Formats: sequence, C-alpha cells, structure tokens
Amino acid sequence: MSKIPVLEIFGPTIQGEGMVVGRKTMFVRTAGCDYSCAWCDSAFTWDGSAKDEIVKMESDEIFTKLKEIGGNQFDHVTVSGGNPPALLKHLDGLIHLLHEHNMEVALETQGSRWQEWFLDVDDLTLSPKPPSSKMKTNWTILDEIIDLLIINNRLAHTSLKIVVFDEKDLQYAEKVHQRYPAVPFFLQVGNDDLQENQPSHLAGHLLEKYEWLIDKVMSNSQLNHVRVLPQVHALVWGGNKRGGFDYVNPPLIS
Amino acid sequence: MSKIPVLEIFGPTIQGEGMVVGRKTMFVRTAGCDYSCAWCDSAFTWDGSAKDEIVKMESDEIFTKLKEIGGNQFDHVTVSGGNPPALLKHLDGLIHLLHEHNMEVALETQGSRWQEWFLDVDDLTLSPKPPSSKMKTNWTILDEIIDLLIINNRLAHTSLKIVVFDEKDLQYAEKVHQRYPAVPFFLQVGNDDLQENQPSHLAGHLLEKYEWLIDKVMSNSQLNHVRVLPQVHALVWGGNKRGGFDYVNPPLIS
Ligand code: SF4
Ligand code: SF4
Repeated sequence: MSKIPVLEIFGPTIQGEGMVVGRKTMFVRTAGCDYSCAWCDSAFTWDGSAKDEIVKMESDEIFTKLKEIGGNQFDHVTVSGGNPPALLKHLDGLIHLLHEHNMEVALETQGSRWQEWFLDVDDLTLSPKPPSSKMKTNWTILDEIIDLLIINNRLAHTSLKIVVFDEKDLQYAEKVHQRYPAVPFFLQVGNDDLQENQPSHLAGHLLEKYEWLIDKVMSNSQLNHVRVLPQVHALVWGGNKRGGFDYVNPPLIS
Repeated sequence: MSKIPVLEIFGPTIQGEGMVVGRKTMFVRTAGCDYSCAWCDSAFTWDGSAKDEIVKMESDEIFTKLKEIGGNQFDHVTVSGGNPPALLKHLDGLIHLLHEHNMEVALETQGSRWQEWFLDVDDLTLSPKPPSSKMKTNWTILDEIIDLLIINNRLAHTSLKIVVFDEKDLQYAEKVHQRYPAVPFFLQVGNDDLQENQPSHLAGHLLEKYEWLIDKVMSNSQLNHVRVLPQVHALVWGGNKRGGFDYVNPPLIS
C-alpha cells in the first residue's frame, strides 16, 4: 500500500462547481501539483507553505476520518488537490473502499498525467488550464487521456471544464471544445480576487464577471453545446478555497 | 396538427436551475397551468393577465421563430410554462422537429399529468410542489409518471426538483426523495421576493437563503444523494421570470 499525502478532510458541504455542482460531498484534499497556475486558489497544496501539515494516510485511515467527521450524512467524496494524479499511482484502493460503502467519488485534474484509476472515478473533471494560468497544455497527453476514457465508455462520467478570465481564455475554451466535441463541456468564470474573503463584496463582483462570460458564450456559435457556471461556493463563502467553507470550520487532520 | 399556445420565445440564454443548470438554451414559454402556486414566478402564463399575448403556433412556426431569434447560436430548447403537459397532448411534433435538427429539448412540470411525449424529452424535470405553494400533490399520478419513466429506461434523462422555502417544505422534500430514491434529486432555494427586480439587492438575500438550505441539507442524513442549487439566473438578473433576462430583451412574439 502506498500512503496518500493529505492536507484537509472536511464536509459535508456542497461541490461548488462543474459537472455535479451542488452535490453534497466530503472533501479530501491531497498535497502536490505539477503545475503552478498564476491564479491557483489552492497554492498551499504545492508552494510549501503548508508542508508541515501534510499527513500521510492509508486508504482505510482516510475512510475512518471521513466517517468520524461526516457521520452518516454523506455518500459522495471529492478527492481534491493540488493535482492528485501527479503523485498518486494508487488511488484505486481508496476509490474501491468508498465504492464498497456505496459512496461515489469525484476528482478534478488538469489532465497532465493519466492514471488507470481514472476509469473508476464517478465524476471525473478534466480542467486543462487556459493562457491566463501561464501554463502550457500538453495536448498529446490530453488526447491520450480522452481517447482512453472514450474507449472505456466513460463519457457519462467525464466532463471538461475551462476556467475563463479573459478573451484569450475564451478562445482556448473554443479550441478545447472543438477538439473534444463528445465530452460534456463546462465554462466557469474565473475568480480574480482571491484575497477578497468578504463574501458580500466578492459575490457582486463575481456575478458581474459571470454575466460577462454568459454574454460572450451566448453570442458565440462555436460554443453551443455547453454549460456556463459560476463557482457557487465562492458566491456564498468567499474566494479562497482554504477556509472558504466557514460554516464547517474545516477540521484539519493532524 | 394541434397548435401550441405560445407566450414568449427568447434566447439564447442560460438555464438557471436544475439538472442542466448553466446550459445554453432557447426558451419557448407556453400558456396555461392546472396549478396556482402561492409563489408562482410565472403567474402571467395562467392568471389571464397576458391572455391577449398568446399566439397559437404550429411546431414549424415555432422552429422558424427560434432560428430567426437564435440563429446558429443554440442546440438546446427549453419548453417552459406554465405547465405544458396540462394542455399539450401533442408536443411530440415540436420535439421531433428539434431532434431532427440535432437539438436537445428540456421541460419542467410539476407532475400532475402524464403525456406520452415525456419519453422524448432529453432533460425532464419533475418538480412537485411543496406545502408552501398551497397546492396538493397527487401521489397516484406522480407514482405513475415515475414508474413509466423507469420502465422506459429514462432515468438518465429525468430529475426531481423540490423548491424549498421553509422547514415544512424540507420535510416534503425528504418524503419525495425517500419515495423515489432512484431519481436524481435536486433541492432549490425558493425566491420569496418576486417583486425585487434589483439583482444586486436580491442576490445577497438569495445567497443567505441558499446558505440556510445548504446548512439544513448538510446536517440531514435523509438527504445525502442530493444536489442543492440556487437559481443562478435570479442571482444575475433578478427574480421575476418575465423580463428577468434583461440582456436579451425577451422578444415577445406577436
Ligand atoms: S493545476 Fe490546479 S492545483 Fe495545480 S497550480 Fe493549477 S490551479 Fe493550482
Ligand atoms: S405549477 Fe409552476 S407555472 Fe403552475 S402555478 Fe405552480 S409554479 Fe406557477
């Protein structure tokens, strides 16, 4: 068994974005990312600032902690990062354990690395990063990942999600949608104000940006089979992922 | 051919709620409802106030109008009400025409009447009304509808959505979820301030109510396999459905 580097376990709360937006879920946040996006909202998972808080845990320890915190109030677990596939060759142990207990599993990754256990994830979001992130997409790897998901009949469990901050990001989103037309496609408004943790201030700003994105997408005939969403958790609790869920007081494991 | 009583055709805009929240779509709003919910946000469809604006249209006339307004910027049409199944025995003509043009079709109904063409709807939302509506659910009919959808293998195209204003509505939601555990289940925060059309005033209020609903659902072990959503269109454009989409200036047909 290989251990999983865990930074936070908390919930239940809602999934704030993407293909299962609103889903009641627990979060397991893992450490480590192979990217360093300009606007990363969970940079503490990879920039070293929280490295003393990382706890290496076996799957069954994670499961025990989930039950301790979430009781019988959940049946869905989101494995979050960072980018879990960057480090974790063996997340299948945790996924199977959760499945045995009739729980569903969601995971998001930028699609920089394939892992076999992607085929076991119930809600898999591929979120390649647009130009504003300052990262470069490896199209060869992304092609391979999506081919493997299609060949293995996983489309109903997969989505693409592009975060959009500006016009260039929108062009990137178009390109991704055209390249993979069969994959359910989500556009998400970017949050450019990570320091603003006053939800009431942030919400108005984010809703204006959301309206901008809606306008752009509605008038674009290359973006028809799409869904456009805000981050609803940021509207309610503010922008910074860590501590964003102030009503659950994220119990850091230690 | 039987004609369809149409009140509004507009879009493209986003679907603001439910199973395909965020989906780029056109709206065809039909007249007529067999209910009169206390908090109906589209009462003009059935209270007589807009009866002079109803235009009876054939399916191909509706299709022509949709293309005229939406151009090549859509591939999804939401048939809205009122309650379309209350009057329309033959919506299949319109649905098939849209399918022939590779468009998907969504429809919401409270589930007070079965129609054969439910089996052709791509995104069918059943939204039985909770106690705060002052309406009474006919469980026999709702059971029949859901049985028929399950028998015909339509679960992937179906969802239940309960609007929640208060504790009693929440108990009602629990009951519905327990009665039909196999059907994807959505909880939606109710908008109790339909007169407030200043989006900035309304959004803060709705987000508070949304947070209340999230808290309630997170601590309720009977509501695990669920999704909790706001009405995102109301956050952006305000509460009253008619004219709520102020950026498209709904072109009333006439
Ligand atoms: S891929 Fe995700 S976790 Fe990694 S740097 Fe980018 S936004 Fe942050
Ligand atoms: S069923 Fe819908 S349209 Fe009919 S009165 Fe109730 S809320 Fe209004």
